[in-house]
Amino acid sequence: MHAWWRAANYLSVGQIYLLANPLLRTPLTMDDVKPRLLGHWGTTPGLNFIYVHLNRIIRREDCSVLFIAGPGHGAPGVVASTYLEGTYSELYPQVSQDEEGLRRLFRQFSFPGGIPSHAAPETPGSIHEGGELGYSLAHAYGAVLDNPDLIAACVVGDGEAETGPLATSWHANKFLNPVTDGTVLPILHLNGYKIANPTVLARIDPEELEALFIGYGHDPIFVEGEDPMEMHGRMAEALDIAFARIADIRRIAREDGGAPRPRWPMIILRSPKGWTGPKTVDGLKTEGFWRSHQVPFGDMSHPGHLKLLEEWLLSYRPEELFDHAGALHPDIAAMAPSGQARMSANPHANGGALRKPLRMPDFTTLAVEVPHPGGVEAEATRVMGQFLRDVMSANSEARNFRVFGPDETASNRLQALFEVTGRAWDAATLPYDDHLSPDGRVMEILSEHLCQGWCEGYLLTGRHALFSCYEAFIHIVDSMFNQHAKWLKSSQEVPWRLPIASLNYLLTSHVWRQDHNGFSHQDPGFIDHVVNKKAEIVRVYLPPDANTLLCVTDHCLRSWNRVNVIVAGKQPSPQWLDMDAAIKHCAGGIGIWEWASNDRGAEPDVVLACAGDVPTLETIAAAGLLREYFPELKVRVINVVDLMTLQPKSEHPHGLSDAAFDALFTTDKPVIFAYHGYPWLIHRLAYRRTNHANMHVRGYIEEGSTTTPFDMVVRNRLDRFHLVADVVDRVPKLASVGAYARQAIRDKLVEHNLYIRAHGVDLPEVRDWAWKG
Amino acid sequence: MHAWWRAANYLSVGQIYLLANPLLRTPLTMDDVKPRLLGHWGTTPGLNFIYVHLNRIIRREDCSVLFIAGPGHGAPGVVASTYLEGTYSELYPQVSQDEEGLRRLFRQFSFPGGIPSHAAPETPGSIHEGGELGYSLAHAYGAVLDNPDLIAACVVGDGEAETGPLATSWHANKFLNPVTDGTVLPILHLNGYKIANPTVLARIDPEELEALFIGYGHDPIFVEGEDPMEMHGRMAEALDIAFARIADIRRIAREDGGAPRPRWPMIILRSPKGWTGPKTVDGLKTEGFWRSHQVPFGDMSHPGHLKLLEEWLLSYRPEELFDHAGALHPDIAAMAPSGQARMSANPHANGGALRKPLRMPDFTTLAVEVPHPGGVEAEATRVMGQFLRDVMSANSEARNFRVFGPDETASNRLQALFEVTGRAWDAATLPYDDHLSPDGRVMEILSEHLCQGWCEGYLLTGRHALFSCYEAFIHIVDSMFNQHAKWLKSSQEVPWRLPIASLNYLLTSHVWRQDHNGFSHQDPGFIDHVVNKKAEIVRVYLPPDANTLLCVTDHCLRSWNRVNVIVAGKQPSPQWLDMDAAIKHCAGGIGIWEWASNDRGAEPDVVLACAGDVPTLETIAAAGLLREYFPELKVRVINVVDLMTLQPKSEHPHGLSDAAFDALFTTDKPVIFAYHGYPWLIHRLAYRRTNHANMHVRGYIEEGSTTTPFDMVVRNRLDRFHLVADVVDRVPKLASVGAYARQAIRDKLVEHNLYIRAHGVDLPEVRDWAWKG
Repeated sequence: MHAWWRAANYLSVGQIYLLANPLLRTPLTMDDVKPRLLGHWGTTPGLNFIYVHLNRIIRREDCSVLFIAGPGHGAPGVVASTYLEGTYSELYPQVSQDEEGLRRLFRQFSFPGGIPSHAAPETPGSIHEGGELGYSLAHAYGAVLDNPDLIAACVVGDGEAETGPLATSWHANKFLNPVTDGTVLPILHLNGYKIANPTVLARIDPEELEALFIGYGHDPIFVEGEDPMEMHGRMAEALDIAFARIADIRRIAREDGGAPRPRWPMIILRSPKGWTGPKTVDGLKTEGFWRSHQVPFGDMSHPGHLKLLEEWLLSYRPEELFDHAGALHPDIAAMAPSGQARMSANPHANGGALRKPLRMPDFTTLAVEVPHPGGVEAEATRVMGQFLRDVMSANSEARNFRVFGPDETASNRLQALFEVTGRAWDAATLPYDDHLSPDGRVMEILSEHLCQGWCEGYLLTGRHALFSCYEAFIHIVDSMFNQHAKWLKSSQEVPWRLPIASLNYLLTSHVWRQDHNGFSHQDPGFIDHVVNKKAEIVRVYLPPDANTLLCVTDHCLRSWNRVNVIVAGKQPSPQWLDMDAAIKHCAGGIGIWEWASNDRGAEPDVVLACAGDVPTLETIAAAGLLREYFPELKVRVINVVDLMTLQPKSEHPHGLSDAAFDALFTTDKPVIFAYHGYPWLIHRLAYRRTNHANMHVRGYIEEGSTTTPFDMVVRNRLDRFHLVADVVDRVPKLASVGAYARQAIRDKLVEHNLYIRAHGVDLPEVRDWAWKG
Repeated sequence: MHAWWRAANYLSVGQIYLLANPLLRTPLTMDDVKPRLLGHWGTTPGLNFIYVHLNRIIRREDCSVLFIAGPGHGAPGVVASTYLEGTYSELYPQVSQDEEGLRRLFRQFSFPGGIPSHAAPETPGSIHEGGELGYSLAHAYGAVLDNPDLIAACVVGDGEAETGPLATSWHANKFLNPVTDGTVLPILHLNGYKIANPTVLARIDPEELEALFIGYGHDPIFVEGEDPMEMHGRMAEALDIAFARIADIRRIAREDGGAPRPRWPMIILRSPKGWTGPKTVDGLKTEGFWRSHQVPFGDMSHPGHLKLLEEWLLSYRPEELFDHAGALHPDIAAMAPSGQARMSANPHANGGALRKPLRMPDFTTLAVEVPHPGGVEAEATRVMGQFLRDVMSANSEARNFRVFGPDETASNRLQALFEVTGRAWDAATLPYDDHLSPDGRVMEILSEHLCQGWCEGYLLTGRHALFSCYEAFIHIVDSMFNQHAKWLKSSQEVPWRLPIASLNYLLTSHVWRQDHNGFSHQDPGFIDHVVNKKAEIVRVYLPPDANTLLCVTDHCLRSWNRVNVIVAGKQPSPQWLDMDAAIKHCAGGIGIWEWASNDRGAEPDVVLACAGDVPTLETIAAAGLLREYFPELKVRVINVVDLMTLQPKSEHPHGLSDAAFDALFTTDKPVIFAYHGYPWLIHRLAYRRTNHANMHVRGYIEEGSTTTPFDMVVRNRLDRFHLVADVVDRVPKLASVGAYARQAIRDKLVEHNLYIRAHGVDLPEVRDWAWKG
C-alpha cells in the first residue's frame, strides 16, 4: 500500500511539474519542466493516502464506494489514482499505461488544451467539480439517497469546512434512512492550512473538535500523525472500525426496523499539508505549512530548485514502481479493486448511464376546465402539485424521483405530494407530526444550499428531481447553479459521460405576491443570472396559468442535460387556456392569443406582449380597457411561455427566426411588453430584432413593499392602466383622441390609491379579475 | 416584568389582527379586524420574552446592548417593545403613546403604506433585515468589532440555524478579540418549528445539542419550559450568569492580556412556538406547533374566531397595562432603560449617526510612473494594497476601518496591509504563523457569507470596510448583496437613519486570468446582478490600470450609502495613464484616449470602446494593428471606467446625456466594444442610445478553461485579432482592401494555436504587451 501511495504521489508531482522525461531516465533538465507551474500539491498526498486505504477496504468488503474529493484542487491525486487503477487509460486510451502515456498524463495537467487543475467532469469517478468549495458533503448525501448499498466516502477539507454550505451539510444525516438509503462516510482532512491562513477546525481544542462532531450526530474516529508507516496502520484500523459500524447500523436498521437515528461513523484525519513534499524550500518551512498549498517552489530558474525537484521525485523511488516500459508493477497494480469496484469506475459517478426516464402519467387528466378564457380561477402550483404526486406514484417502485425545497413544499402549494409520500426525517418525531417519515421522498431543510446540493448529487447519480423555492431566495444558490451549469456544459464535451436528468427549478411565491413579506422577498433576477450561461443548457419558462404549467412541467421532467427554470404563481388566478390550447401554446413557446386580440389577422396598431402570470393578467385587462376606450384600435396580444424564443435563433436553439419574430411583433408597430422580471432582460434578449426600437418593456423596478397585489403592479407601472397609458403615448393615431382615456386612467389610479389606503385591500373591480371575453 | 411581556404580546397580537378598537373598549366586531391578516405570531412571544429580560439586566448592569432579531418575522414583537420603550413614538410622533397611537401602530403593520411584517430599516434599534434568514450572527459579530463595550444580543431562530451562513457563523468567535472588541451573546431560540416542519436542532438529543455548542466554542446555558412564571426565573438567572461571565472574560483579558480564547456564554431557550397564544384552533393543536407560525387563525368569518381573538387579547388583561388614555401604566413603563440605554435607541443601530469619514491619505503619492502609455507594467491590486495600508495606518487610532476577504488578501496581492496590521485570529497559534493577531484588522475566513455578514454589520454600525473577493465566487453572496442594497434603498426613505459608509467590493482574480483554475473560476456576472438594483445605490468601476484603480478606490472609500463594485486584475499588466491623466479620466468616468486614437478630433471611421483591464489591453493592441494594416483608417479609442455612464441619464445619475454619448460614440459609425463581462450587459445598458444598432460587443461567452491568458481572449473572440476582424467586417470602406488583413489575422490565430499547444505559453509577441505609442 505504501508503494501505491508513493506511486500516486509521484504521479501527482509529475503532473504539476513535468512536461517530459516522466520516468527520470535521464537527469532532469529545464526542458523537462513545464514553462508555467500550476496546480495544488498541499492536499494531494492526503487524498492519495485516503484513496489507497479505501481501495484496501473495498477489496476486502467487496462494496460499492463513491469517492468525493471536497478539496477538488487535489486533482493531481485523484487523476493519479484513477490512472493507477487503469480506468483513466480505458476512457482516454491515448493516456496509456506506458512511458508515452505517463508523458501525456503529466503534460495535459493544467496545460492549454489539457485538463483543469481540479476534479472536473473529465475526471473518472467524480461527480464533483472541486473548483468552488462547500458542496462536497451535500453532493455525497444526494448521491446515496435511494442507493442502499452505496457508500460515499467524502473527503472534506478543513478549508472547505469553513464555508456555510458545508457547515450546515453535517446535519444532512438527520434526513438519511439507513434502510433505503446508502451511507456517507465523511473524512475530515485537517491539513491545517488554506491558501495563506491556518484553518479554524485545525486550531480549536481537541475536545471542542470532538464535541462538534458528536454534536453533528457523528461518532468521530481520529487518525493523527506524520510518520507514514504509523499512519498506514492507524488509517487501516480506522476504516475497519468505520466500515464495521456502517455494516452494523445497516443490519440493525434493516433487520429490526424502527431503530433510532444512528450515530454514523466519520474519520478525522490530521496529516501535514504537502505531506512527503520538501520539508523546506530556500530555508522556509514548506511541508506542513501553507507554503505547500499550491506549487511548493515555482521559480525553476532558482539555483537548486531543479535538483530539489529531482530529489523529491526520486524520493518516491519510481524505479520500484514502474517497469521498464513505464507500466505500474503488477504486484502494485493488483492492489486496485477490479472493474466497477474501482472508485474511478463506480457506475454511480456516471449517472447518465444509470438514468432511466421517469414513467410519466398523463398530465392532461389533471387539466383545469376553462369554459372560456378567464372564466375560472385556480392556483397553478396546487394543480402542479397533483401532477408531481402522480409522477411520484408512478415512479415509487423505481425510487428515482424526489422533490427538494427549503421548508416550502406546502407553502408553495405542492402538498398533494403528501398524499403519496412524506417528508424525509430521521430525527426525533412527536405524535402530532405531519407527514414526517424516514423514507419520505420530499426533502425539506431550511437551507437552499443543502437542497440544491442534495438535488445535484441525486441528479448526477442518475435520478430525477424538482427543486421548489421562493423566487427571491433562489439567489442564495446562484453560485451553485453556475457550477452545475458549467458542469453540464463541460460534460457534453466528455464522450463517456452520458446525459443526466435536467435540474428543474420551480420558482414560486414570486415577486408580485409578497403581500406581507414585502421588499426583501422581491427579486426576479435569477432569470437574468441563468441566461448568462450557455444557451444549450438553460431554459426559462413562464407559464401563465395552470394548464400551461402542467405542460411545461411534463416537458421539463422528460428533458436531460438542462437547467429548466419555471416561474409560476401559487395564488388563485384566472385561467386562460384549456388543455388543448395550452399544449399548442407551449409547443410554440410563444403565440398570439386571438381571443384577446382584435387585429383579426390584419396588421395591428399595437402589440401587447406579456410573459408571466401577473403580467398576463394585466395585459389581458389592458386589452379589455383598450377595446372599451378605443374600439377601432387593432390590438394584438402575444403571450410568451418560453422566454428563450425571444433570442435570435443564432443565439439560442429555441430562438424564433427573424421572420417568425417579425410576423408576430411586426417590424414597425409599438410593442408594449409586460414582463415578470427586470424589464431590461427583454431588451437584452431582443435587441437584435427588427422592431426592437419600438419595444417598450414594463417589469419589476424595485418598487413596492408590503402592499396589495394590485398596488404592487401599480408601483412598478406594470398595471393595466399604465399599460393603456403606454399605448396611448405610443400609437400616433391616439394622440388626439387619447385625452379621455388618459383622464380615465388618472382617475382610476387615484381611486385605487384612496381605496387601498382606506381599506387595505385592492379595489373590488381589480379583485374581480375574470376577463369577460 | 410579566406585565411588560403581556403588554408586548398584546401589542403584537393587536398589530397582526386589529384595525381599530385597540383597547377593546367595545366588544370586537369584524370592522375592528383587518381585512387581510398577515404576520408571524409564532416567534413573537419568545422575542418579547427575551427583550424584557434583556431590559432587566441592562438596567442593572448599565450596559450597551444591541438587539438583533434573527427571526426577523417577529417584527410585531420588536416593534411592540420599541413602542413600549417610547422610542417608536419619538421617531414616529404620529404613533403616539395613547389610544390613537395604538390604533395607528396596529393598523400600519403589514398594511399597504405601512410597515413590513419583519424587522426592517424602519424598525428602531435594528441593523438587521429579517426577511432572508441566515445572517443575524454574522451581523452581530460585525457590529461588536472595535466596540469593546458593546454586547450584541443575537436571537438565532432554530429555523435560521439550519441555513449555511448561520451554521458557519458560530465559528466567528475565533476572530473576536476580548480586549478590543465587544461581545456577542447568542440566544438560540428553539421553538421547534419552521413553516411546516420541525427544526433539526429542536429534535436532536439534548447531549448532541450541548456537544454541538461546546464544539462551536461556547458555554451554553439552557432555559427550558412552558410555564411563564417558572421561565421568568430561569431566564433571569441565565442572563445573570451570562453577563457575569462576559464581565469576567473581559476583565481577565483586559487586565491580564494574553489570555487564551475564552468560551463565551450563550443561551439556549426552548419555549413553545406561539407561546401564550390559543392552545388549539378548531380542535387542532396550535400553541407549540407550526400552526402558530404565521396567523394562528386567519378566516375570521369562521364562527367563533372573532370570540377566540377577543379572548386571546383579553387574556393579557390590557386594562391592567394601559391607562384610560391608552398610555402604558407608569410602573410598567419604568421597567425600560432610559435614553440611549434602550435597545431601541442604541446609537450603534443607527450607524450613520456614529460614522466619521475616514482620514484619507494622498493616493497620488503611490502613483505608478508611466513614462508613456504602455511603457511600464504593474500589478494593479498590489498598488492598491499599498493605499489600503496607508488608509489603515491613517485610521489606526479611530479603529474604524477593516478589510474582509475569504483567505485571499495575499492571493489578491493586497499584502502591503500586513505591514501595518495582522489577520484577526483568536484561536491557537504556532510559532511560524504569519501575521495572525487577536487585534488584526484583516478578517479572513473561507466563507464569503461570513465575510459579507461581518462587513455589513461593521458598516451598519458606522464604520468603513472593503471586501476583496475572487470575482467568480462573489456570486456566493448574491443574495446578501440584494438584501443590503434593499436595506440601503429603504433606509433612505427613513428620515432618522443617517447615511452609512458604502459597501466596497474589490473583485479580482477575475475571469480572464484563471490560467489554471479554469472554467469553474470564470464568472463576471456579479455586475449583471448588481445593476438590477436601484440606480441610486449601485456603482460599477472597471479601472484599466493601477493609477485609475487608486483614484477609484479613493472615491469609493469616501462615499456613502452605495454599493461600489470595483473589478481589477492582480497580474502584471501594462499601465496606460499617469496620475494626472488617471484623475481626469476617472472624473469623467469615460473618455477618448487620444494617444491611442488617430481621428484627431474628426469623425472617426470606427470607434473601439473598452471596459476592463484585459479588454483595454486587447483594444489598444487592436488599434495598433489597425494602424499597421490601414494607416488611413480613423480610429477612436474610448475607455470606460464607470460602467454606469453608458446608461441613459434618466436611468442612472452617472449616465451620460444623449448628446455627450453621441459625441463620443458617434451616431452612425461602427462601435466595436470589448467588455470585461458578459457582452449582453452593454446592450442592456446602451439600448436606448442613438448609435446602439451599430454597437458590436465582445465579452466573456463561457468559453475557455485551463489555458493561457491570451488563449482565453481568443476563445471568447475578445482578442486583438478578432477585434480587427470585427472592424474589417463592419467598416464599408475596408470591404475591398480588407482581404490582406483577414489573411494576416487568420495566420496569426493559427500560429497562436500551434504555439500554445506546443509550448503551453502564449506567443512571445503577445507576452510582449507594451504598446509602442
